[in-house]
This record gives sequence, C-alpha cells and structure tokens, in this order.
Amino acid sequence: MLTDYGLTDEFAGVLRAVVAREAPGASIVDVSHDVAPFDVRAGALALVRAAPHLGPGVIVGVVDPGVGGPRRCIAIETPGRDAPRYLVGPDNGLLMWAAEAIGGIERVVEIDRRRRSEEAVGRTFDGRDVFAPAAAALYGGSDLSALGRSVEEDGLTVLEAVHLEVWASGIEAEVLWIDRFGNAELSATPGDAERAGLGAESELVVTSAPGCAEERIVTRAEAFCGIPDGSVGVIVDSNGHVALAGNRLSAALTLGLRAGDRVRLVRVDVPGRERGGS
Amino acid sequence: MLTDYGLTDEFAGVLRAVVAREAPGASIVDVSHDVAPFDVRAGALALVRAAPHLGPGVIVGVVDPGVGGPRRCIAIETPGRDAPRYLVGPDNGLLMWAAEAIGGIERVVEIDRRRRSEEAVGRTFDGRDVFAPAAAALYGGSDLSALGRSVEEDGLTVLEAVHLEVWASGIEAEVLWIDRFGNAELSATPGDAERAGLGAESELVVTSAPGCAEERIVTRAEAFCGIPDGSVGVIVDSNGHVALAGNRLSAALTLGLRAGDRVRLVRVDVPGRERGGS
Amino acid sequence: MLTDYGLTDEFAGVLRAVVAREAPGASIVDVSHDVAPFDVRAGALALVRAAPHLGPGVIVGVVDPGVGGPRRCIAIETPGRDAPRYLVGPDNGLLMWAAEAIGGIERVVEIDRRRRSEEAVGRTFDGRDVFAPAAAALYGGSDLSALGRSVEEDGLTVLEAVHLEVWASGIEAEVLWIDRFGNAELSATPGDAERAGLGAESELVVTSAPGCAEERIVTRAEAFCGIPDGSVGVIVDSNGHVALAGNRLSAALTLGLRAGDRVRLVRVDVPGRERGGS
Repeated sequence: MLTDYGLTDEFAGVLRAVVAREAPGASIVDVSHDVAPFDVRAGALALVRAAPHLGPGVIVGVVDPGVGGPRRCIAIETPGRDAPRYLVGPDNGLLMWAAEAIGGIERVVEIDRRRRSEEAVGRTFDGRDVFAPAAAALYGGSDLSALGRSVEEDGLTVLEAVHLEVWASGIEAEVLWIDRFGNAELSATPGDAERAGLGAESELVVTSAPGCAEERIVTRAEAFCGIPDGSVGVIVDSNGHVALAGNRLSAALTLGLRAGDRVRLVRVDVPGRERGGS
Repeated sequence: MLTDYGLTDEFAGVLRAVVAREAPGASIVDVSHDVAPFDVRAGALALVRAAPHLGPGVIVGVVDPGVGGPRRCIAIETPGRDAPRYLVGPDNGLLMWAAEAIGGIERVVEIDRRRRSEEAVGRTFDGRDVFAPAAAALYGGSDLSALGRSVEEDGLTVLEAVHLEVWASGIEAEVLWIDRFGNAELSATPGDAERAGLGAESELVVTSAPGCAEERIVTRAEAFCGIPDGSVGVIVDSNGHVALAGNRLSAALTLGLRAGDRVRLVRVDVPGRERGGS
Repeated sequence: MLTDYGLTDEFAGVLRAVVAREAPGASIVDVSHDVAPFDVRAGALALVRAAPHLGPGVIVGVVDPGVGGPRRCIAIETPGRDAPRYLVGPDNGLLMWAAEAIGGIERVVEIDRRRRSEEAVGRTFDGRDVFAPAAAALYGGSDLSALGRSVEEDGLTVLEAVHLEVWASGIEAEVLWIDRFGNAELSATPGDAERAGLGAESELVVTSAPGCAEERIVTRAEAFCGIPDGSVGVIVDSNGHVALAGNRLSAALTLGLRAGDRVRLVRVDVPGRERGGS
C-alpha cells in the first residue's frame, strides 16, 4: 500500500482494516502513507523504487486528487511471478511506472464502481470503497475480469517522462526525490554519467542548481561516509541512480534543491592535478 | 488499535509487540496512533468513523489523560458478528460511541489491574500493562468475565454529545474533524441538511464560522472535484456527514476552522437566478 | 524493527517488504521508525526499553550513520526462549544494551556482505540489502553461522555508559529520553533514589537542569495525575526509571530539558513541615 493519506487521520487504518476484513490472513505491507498530498508524481516514483522489492501480491496505490470525478479506477495485471501480480488504483499515472518495473502490463480493467461501492455514503474515499475491496478480491483469487470491463492500455493516463539530457561533458537531470536525510536522487544512472565523462574515474564534477547562486564542486564517493565532512558528494544510491548526498549533512538544504528541480553535473579538470599520479 | 502515542516513541510498537507476543497470529490493524495527545473526543470520533469498517476482533483504544489515576479500565462486549466484538480501553468515554456504532453494549467489565499488571514497574503505561494483555486474552477466546468484575453500563463515562441545531432555513453544526486535506466534517447529515432546506437541490448556502469575519457563499458538490477552483464547497463525506471541503484547497484554513468550532449553514436564494432555467 | 528511516520515505516499507517476501508469514512489529536521524544512542535506548516486551523472534535495528563504510554488519544470538533470540544491525553499539536486557550475548557473527548484497546497486541501503535478508534467514531457521564468520564479543562497539552519580543526599542523572508527552526519563532507578535519600517517603526534591536558571521544587507522585496542576513531579515511569513528568504539561519544556542533559535531584527538608504529623 502506498497513499497520501498520512498517518494522523484514520484513512490508512481503515484501508488496512478493509483489506484485513475481506482478505483474512493477508500480509499487509505499508510502503508509505506519507506521500505529499496529491503529489501523484512523487507517489509514482516511490512505487517504482519499492516495487522491485515487493513479493507476490497486490499493490494498492492511492494518490488521487481526482477522487469522485471522472477519472477511472483501474486494476492492472502483470506477468509477475515473484513480484506483485496486480496493481490497483486511480488511472492518473500513479501505477504505470511501477507496472513497467515489474514486468509490464498484461491486462487492465476499469473497476466497476457500482458493484463495489453501492453501500458507500459519499464518493470521496475510493481507497476504502473501491480499491481495498478490489485488492482483497484479487488477493483472494478473483480473476481480473470479475472487477470490471477490459480497457486498452493505450488509453491509460501516463505522467510526463522524467527529464534527462546527456551530452559529451555533462548531464542535466531532474531531482526525483529528496529523502529524509536530504539526499537528492537524480534521473541519471551511472551509465548516463559514464557517457558524459562523469564516470567513477572522474573525481570531480560541478553542479549548478536553481537554489544555489554559484556552482559547487562535488566529489565522487562510494557511499555517504566517503564524502568529505561539510561538503556534498555524488554517489550511486540504493536504487541505482546518481544522487547528490552529504555525510550527515543534507545535500538538498546545502544546494537548495527540491524535487522536480533540474541540476547540471559537468566534468571539471582541475589544473595541476593529474590522475594516477603524485 | 487507536492511540495518542504517536509513532516517534516506541509506545505504539510495544503495544503491538505485547499483542503479537500474547496472541500469536493475530492480525494487528493500526487505525491511528496519532490522535492529538489527550484528545479523548477526537479519538472517540475517529473510532466511530473507523469502527463500521473493522472486521471481527478486538478494538484497543488508548487516549488516556487519567492513566494511573482512579479512572477505570474497561472491556466492552457487543453483539458483533461481522464487526469487532470487544472494545478495551479507559472508562473516559473514548469507546462508547464506537460501541454504539457496531451494535451497542451487551456487557462491560472493569479490568482487574492486579491480575494484569503485577509485574509492571510503573503505573503509567496501561496500554502495555493492562489493555494489550486484556485484548490478547479476548482475542484468544477468554470470556469477558475472566478479566474482572461486571459493571453497569449506566455508570460508564460518556462524552458530551456533539452539537447540532436544525431549523427551517439552516443548521448550526459542530466541526467534528479536520482531516489532512483540510476538509471539515460537520455533525450534520444530509438528512439534517434536507430538513433545513439545504438539500442537494439547493445550490448555494452561506456559512459563518468563528475564524472568518464575513459570511461565505459555498456551493453544493458531489465530490471535491465538483467544487470550483479556489472556493469552498459543501459535500457529503465518506462517513455520511455534511462537510466543508475544497478542491485541492484546505477548507479549514480558508475558513479558519478548528475541530469543536460551530458553523452555520443557511440557505440563500440568489436574486435573478432560477433553477432549471437559463 | 527499529530504524531512523522515518515513515515519509518508503525505506521502512521496503524493509518490511523484504522481510515479508523472504519470510512469508512472519509477524512484523514496527517498534519505531522515527528515531532521530543518526542518533544511535536514542535508538539503543528505545530498543532496550522495548526489548523486554518483545516475543520470540529477530530484532532488526538500523540507525546507521556509517552505512557503506568500514563498520561491520553483525548478527547476535542470545539465550532467549521467550524473548527475541537474534539481533541484527550495524556494529555501532545500537544493539548491545538490548542484547544484555534480554539475556546477554551467546554468539556473534559478522554478516558476509558478498553473499547477501551481490545484486544491490548501491552501498547505501544495508537495511534492505543486508539486515532484512539476514533477519528473514534467521527467522526461517538458518543457523547464525550461515550468515558469516564468528567474531569475538570483545571487539564489538559499545556506546558510552549512561551517566549517573549517587551521593548521600542526591543524584546527578542523565536524561535518557524525552517522550511525546514531554516526560523526561532519567538514568536513575527508584533504588538509586532511595540510596540518595530521595525514596518514596521523601516528599520534595529539588532539581537543577541546564535549561533552567533556577532550582525547582518537584514533588513525588505515583503517576501523572498525582502531580499538582502546572508543576513538575518525579515519578517512576513504565520502564522502572525515575522520570520528571507533568500532569498534561511537558516537564521537558518547563525545565528546558533535552536528551543527554544532566539533572540533579537533591532532597530538601522544608522548614516547619513534619512528616506524618499535622
């Protein structure tokens, strides 16, 4: 389960309760309920990071500013054997990247609201009234087709692709995520960095970020603790992305970064400094 | 489980651990651990909203400013078959509305502290020392009478009823709850609104709230997304209550509302505007 | 599980997911994921408070500023039968006090990273890549020796012992923990207080704290509700420690206390006041 319900209200608890009631014995894993309210992109990125580590089962994702409106409720089937086989949530792009990450889309249905939420009193809590019951049904062995009519994959909503430009001596990447520790995950992979001459063997890169008046030299490191105290470094993070990070220091605060910002990393050759020498 | 323990300290985790240890295999559903500290009324309202969606089992509620004092620890039995059959917590009103919502009270006992917490080192954590073990015992099949002596329902503490006045052309309702998204649930139902001439067919109502110098015109909508951008609307929320809500905008911030406030909704007939016409 | 991952990012959810995937049917208890980032001491103290209440199983503790660096990953076996039998986490002192609290250390191994995290893409998420799989293996019946080579208990990292001085008429104790309600748990037990003449029969003690210009008279009480309104009292808390507490008032805010501070409690004999008389 991943939602933007927060943990203060009982929304997430009720979601858990409905699944526990309708699919007794189901092991419920809360991926996060603290996605920023209505931030579908942040939710989709968190799901795609988490999905490869989830076991067989059903993903329920609810970040859903359009609840109660015309957007469809969907359930996706993937070819997953060791991965989650189903994803359930709104048709607003939230689920698509995660579905790709675990094998792609085999079938999609639009969940029939009338069957699912006839007892509901308002149309504002589809997590409880539509998604949780659908997930419980799939968990219990229902076929996807029992939830509603089949729809074409082509008609599904997709989010704008993440930004990334790579050229001979640098990259411009989107900040995908600022984590609790202030690390900024970028849309670039080590392979992208390599192509831009920013491979592991390049010691220094310069970054320019919107929140930072001047350029900063950042160093390559293997992990947080390889970054010199008080400075920001470039690492490969646990999702296989290039990230700006600090050693017990928030890279995001230091560089003034926020999710969605674009940062440039450019190779520098420091005068008088030679590789492999001195 | 519903508590005001928060999730930063290990209180809620220890509660879970005691239940998991004493009732192996129990499916533990956290409704919320983030009720405002000591806010028994907010806890009781959250429980009553969640209770109808909980499956068979035991509700443990701990919002308990009187812990260690003379207030009693109680366990309530309801006639529930598909709903939770027991509620365990302090006798301070926290559990009563939820018990009503799932079928009413059949029996109540005062939990015998001496049997339950003889090993405890302090008298400040009844959740761990009294309520969790009692809940685990009930989950495991103990009869209510094994927990302590029977007490009369009449002597139980009840909270002050929620405020609601309905007259021919309006209502004055209590704000029961401000959720994460800033929606303000009122004590009125659609039936109350209907009686005051504020039914679904009335397009406009005016609200006056303590935090708002002037009256505001708010529109009726089916769901959040039917509310015009930048304005506040009236909807029926997912608990079957009338609520003031915004479309990606906090109604509570816009109107200066807090839980416990009283707001008036009054019908207006806009001059020159006719229904079904133009 | 106890971590400093927070609940906003999906870190804790992924940890849960890996355990759920690799040890199907395991009952996962979240002790807390909201330890202050990198605060190993706070995490160790929370674990030692929670450990006695945990049932058989595996404790996973991750508060790990040195992730990716040379610090070792360890798994500890205790003689526990009714308590957790294993503790898994970084060798930075986090687990040691909890291990003592549940029976002491029988064997320790350094977890072999190469076996465990060969697929991992970065070296920054040992919770997911090393600790969760190790815990799942132990839960599933693996012998400790299957995880890596045996290491000596003597070489393990230990945290600085908590501060406590006791003399004839007072104590100087470390503030171990400020909880959500503002209660300040001290490193002294009732036995320590007794030795300093601050036993249950002494009605008044004076405390001096670094955040407080002047000394304050605090009264002994059995529980929060025995503390006079608006003042701070001394109680025995639910972990068997002496604590400074308020009755619906934050003792920590009132006295300006933070975890790690040292406070003095000294007995006062109030002139003209006699015990057992008047």
